Amino acid sequence: MITKNQIKFVRALQLKKNRDTHNCFVVEGEKMLEEILQSDFNVIEIFATKTWDFSKVKAIEVHKVSEKELGRISALKTPNKVIAIIEKPRRCLQISTIKNGFTLALDDIKNPGNLGTIIRNCDWFGVKNIICSKNSVDVYNPKVIQATMGSISRVNVYYNDIENVIEKLGNEFPIYGTFMDGENISAFNLEKNALLVMGNESFGISEKVSRLINKKIAIKRKQIGAESLNVAIATSILLYEFNR
Amino acid sequence: MITKNQIKFVRALQLKKNRDTHNCFVVEGEKMLEEILQSDFNVIEIFATKTWDFSKVKAIEVHKVSEKELGRISALKTPNKVIAIIEKPRRCLQISTIKNGFTLALDDIKNPGNLGTIIRNCDWFGVKNIICSKNSVDVYNPKVIQATMGSISRVNVYYNDIENVIEKLGNEFPIYGTFMDGENISAFNLEKNALLVMGNESFGISEKVSRLINKKIAIKRKQIGAESLNVAIATSILLYEFNR
Repeated sequence: MITKNQIKFVRALQLKKNRDTHNCFVVEGEKMLEEILQSDFNVIEIFATKTWDFSKVKAIEVHKVSEKELGRISALKTPNKVIAIIEKPRRCLQISTIKNGFTLALDDIKNPGNLGTIIRNCDWFGVKNIICSKNSVDVYNPKVIQATMGSISRVNVYYNDIENVIEKLGNEFPIYGTFMDGENISAFNLEKNALLVMGNESFGISEKVSRLINKKIAIKRKQIGAESLNVAIATSILLYEFNR
Repeated sequence: MITKNQIKFVRALQLKKNRDTHNCFVVEGEKMLEEILQSDFNVIEIFATKTWDFSKVKAIEVHKVSEKELGRISALKTPNKVIAIIEKPRRCLQISTIKNGFTLALDDIKNPGNLGTIIRNCDWFGVKNIICSKNSVDVYNPKVIQATMGSISRVNVYYNDIENVIEKLGNEFPIYGTFMDGENISAFNLEKNALLVMGNESFGISEKVSRLINKKIAIKRKQIGAESLNVAIATSILLYEFNR
């Protein structure tokens, strides 16, 4: 059974302002929840149909609902057995952590599918931390969550002022960014401890951040005519090359 | 002005069976059409609002329509100035062409966005020819066309039986395919004249095609947990590596 208030509450979490107010977000589907349960996310409440394996959770409030009821709170066309409400984690990224590893910074990524896919790529290539500029799409947007295919449980996403972060890293630290006239990454000796900045889908890296990039790189195109690579595609190629 | 019959006809082309019957497809938007006009595609008919630059075409039937009328024939949420009907090209891919270059084969790709993005990637990395298995999504599906961002005008897509093609290429010709237990591409000496097979989003390369692959490769993951890369992402990394 699900009450009208519960339906209203779960649906409201499709909007960022409500996720911010209540400090929680929604994940859907059996596999997604399984990965969340194995992570350090805090699961608050679960709504599941009778076909779900209820033995998977203890000490969490679980509501058994009908498929019709699940459909009423789902953002998906074909809801899949279970929907859970998860607490947004409180995380803080230390400058020393950035200095001792590889971090991705996303400067105003707007498309939820792109952010989700980039998180999935980071998971594959072992990138633990992503810094999003404050105007980027919200990582707890249901479309982002779905596109991560569960990788959200293994990659940490922070919202911060990228300019500020770079300034704290100091002049010596390698800050990579892609530019049409950058140096070909295939011929470049890429450093393992670095920050890689990727820009907005339409406008690339913002001017104020561009000024702070000390290693301008490019994925060289072979064919005249092709105008650009999608940002999730470009990110995956760069992560591959940084991991080579 | 646009007639009811014209509206019905353009809308009907959203379905493959109608595109097959009439041997044509639809492109939308100013930039897309510009690239099509520069290619060897044959533009049959154009519907454009008064803000479109009509001097761009000669000897093609152009209908001036209102924005509301354009909205009625568009498959997009926000139609952009112009919609055109294009003849499907008749193309035939020679075995000798495959033998003397790099060709991509897609074994049952089902998602239109993936096919469109892969075409865009091929354009960037100079891959001219793609062979799709006969059950793959139709390249003239409006969602595929939009996702190519104009690259459809520079990359040729053929539908064929991949098994048959590989058998004609002979045992010596390198046929690459990705498998979880394949060899790490970073450490592999990739041949430039080759066929690269990418598999279906859920099931990978089909069994009958798998048997014919003589170079099993993999993009190595760094992190345990991550389950897979999206097929368009994996393709882009491989195309990058083949072009290194």
